[in-house]
Amino acid sequence: MDNLDLMKQISIPSLTKIVLLVIDGLGGLPNPKTGKTELETANKPNLDQLAIKGICGLIDPLSPGITPGSAPSHLALFSYDPLSFNIGRGVLEAMGIDFDLQPGDIAARGNFCTVDEAGLVTDRRAGRISTEKCTEFCQLLDGLVIEGVKLFVCPVREHRFITVFRGKGLAPEVSDSDPQQVGVAPRAIVAQHAIARRLANIANEFIAQAKTVLAKHHPANMVLLRGFSQRPHPPTMGEVYKLKPAAIASYPMYRGLARLVGMQVLETGTSIKEEFATLKQNYNNYDFFFIHIKGTDSAGEDGDFDRKVRIIEEVDNALPSLISLKPDVIVVTGDHSTPALLKGHSWHPVPILLYSRWCRPDRVGEFSESACIFGGLGRLPATQVMPLAMANALKLNKFGA
Amino acid sequence: MDNLDLMKQISIPSLTKIVLLVIDGLGGLPNPKTGKTELETANKPNLDQLAIKGICGLIDPLSPGITPGSAPSHLALFSYDPLSFNIGRGVLEAMGIDFDLQPGDIAARGNFCTVDEAGLVTDRRAGRISTEKCTEFCQLLDGLVIEGVKLFVCPVREHRFITVFRGKGLAPEVSDSDPQQVGVAPRAIVAQHAIARRLANIANEFIAQAKTVLAKHHPANMVLLRGFSQRPHPPTMGEVYKLKPAAIASYPMYRGLARLVGMQVLETGTSIKEEFATLKQNYNNYDFFFIHIKGTDSAGEDGDFDRKVRIIEEVDNALPSLISLKPDVIVVTGDHSTPALLKGHSWHPVPILLYSRWCRPDRVGEFSESACIFGGLGRLPATQVMPLAMANALKLNKFGA
Repeated sequence: MDNLDLMKQISIPSLTKIVLLVIDGLGGLPNPKTGKTELETANKPNLDQLAIKGICGLIDPLSPGITPGSAPSHLALFSYDPLSFNIGRGVLEAMGIDFDLQPGDIAARGNFCTVDEAGLVTDRRAGRISTEKCTEFCQLLDGLVIEGVKLFVCPVREHRFITVFRGKGLAPEVSDSDPQQVGVAPRAIVAQHAIARRLANIANEFIAQAKTVLAKHHPANMVLLRGFSQRPHPPTMGEVYKLKPAAIASYPMYRGLARLVGMQVLETGTSIKEEFATLKQNYNNYDFFFIHIKGTDSAGEDGDFDRKVRIIEEVDNALPSLISLKPDVIVVTGDHSTPALLKGHSWHPVPILLYSRWCRPDRVGEFSESACIFGGLGRLPATQVMPLAMANALKLNKFGA
Repeated sequence: MDNLDLMKQISIPSLTKIVLLVIDGLGGLPNPKTGKTELETANKPNLDQLAIKGICGLIDPLSPGITPGSAPSHLALFSYDPLSFNIGRGVLEAMGIDFDLQPGDIAARGNFCTVDEAGLVTDRRAGRISTEKCTEFCQLLDGLVIEGVKLFVCPVREHRFITVFRGKGLAPEVSDSDPQQVGVAPRAIVAQHAIARRLANIANEFIAQAKTVLAKHHPANMVLLRGFSQRPHPPTMGEVYKLKPAAIASYPMYRGLARLVGMQVLETGTSIKEEFATLKQNYNNYDFFFIHIKGTDSAGEDGDFDRKVRIIEEVDNALPSLISLKPDVIVVTGDHSTPALLKGHSWHPVPILLYSRWCRPDRVGEFSESACIFGGLGRLPATQVMPLAMANALKLNKFGA
């Protein structure tokens, strides 16, 4: 019996409420000058207070040493085994912009990019063109029909877009055209199984036509596609946990991911304050809230230690508005670590704090990587977070007689 | 997807180097007089310094409470599930002396031993006869043909040898003749499945002939056989990790084990200094080094607390020559505990330290069992050591989008 089966069997509906605050890329590495991580550097009295009243620990998103992408790390936090529900990037992006994926649709993540006269990629993000420009270029490409397959080309944000292929005889097992580096030409898309040959041909033809259409639109004079995929259908959080869950996330991919596991995705703004305001406005209508803070991860990926510190402080500042709602369970953690020193996701375990009336507090006196080592939750896989939150909300029956 | 599949999927070749230093039987138990374990008693400034700069923890070779043999504990350290790759002792010994095992060959580990006039074992190791004597007696037995099956009898070291059975219709599911105690007669070898009856008969016949041949050669007047087995074929470390791995081990079994997972086994001496010199000489030619220190385990098995302490100090003394090579990742641990107090392998978890530029140091101030409890690695299965070493060497891609 896997985790979800067990939850399905013992979860019960109740009036208690859970808030899961995910500070993306929360975990860090010490700044060589100070010996302190981003979280340890931040002035965060409210998080520290919760850590004192609550119970702390460290979570492994997948397993020790494994650096996760955002999709598997969030699935793990929701207790879905990320190795069995491998969700493609194209599907995630499509869901994030509310694109209504139909059975059989294949979605790919696209970048507008810059190529030089020799056709070599010089900028994978076309100088991060504005969302307005992206929308304009998508309109030039949207609605093509190639070999009877209809193509939807829709803007996401900045240089990012999606292409959805709708038609008969398509399978998603094709390679990416995005070479993930500059100085080389985009790759030809290749079928990895015979059944995917038709999609490979159509995708290559689309790219050829896009190149012609975009030729005059430097720096966005080419497209890169990756993550061709079809939507999986995991059981919803309503089915598994008997929760009425809502997601508050400004960045499309996380909205898509939340929708995939059956959360209601709420309209919100892009600032942390707006996200917390959305929580307050909708607090009476749901019993589980996933709040996603993107800025910490972006700052970590940019190698901007200080900005990551400031965003953690901003979250801490907004926290009293969450606490004043008196949720029965508050969990604060990250989906993975994004140390500014590494400028990317990493394998390091992530601090977690859980506060509830029933949490059996430990002696941890602050919310930090080094203090959480000594926390009462110990070190545990991310897939155990939801069972713990559910238990602390008294939403789980006893297992067995 | 198991550990090896995951590693195979996300590992990438790179220029960084990993050194895995295995101090066999490292973990211990406190001396009742001092309250300190062997490791805690040793003067080991270099190991302590690495522990301060690095991250520490405790590993379970198999799982809590399980005392492993040397083969499963090493397989686990290399991230091979020791329950799926169960490697017989005979195969390990054969590989350790470079015996070219062919498909279908069955190898058994042998001891020359002493029996009294009643046929009862008085010394399972025949007074640890010299390797020269062992070689001489093996020659007396080598090359027999029994029921069309050819027997190879080859010396290993001191009283140890191997017997390899080559022929048709053989299966390895037979019991040992070694009773693992003195005062009793060697056991008759019994087939555990019908298909293994032919091997059982042939092995018993071999033992009978050996008894006759050896009658005049007291103390080596009998043989004991155990660990009848066939070579498995796990994927190599090159395939799994995209490493070019080398092993530095003086004791045959560990050389065999390293060869089994595809390491290049380097020529080396029997002293710790010689092993470290071999590392230095070969440092440029490989990107992963497994260094095996045998003396600690032997001292533990002999119940010699002080000798185990001295060997740990000897390792510590040699350590600067390793550190001066500046490997990207240094891991120091043991394959299992061998407390001198227990005179044998034990189930106690084993201290581990990992040092790399990216290791997120903890507050552990010395390398010891009691300090490692509070380490940032927490307590983890030995199979997670390689993923962590690979991650710290930046040799793993992100998993998922």
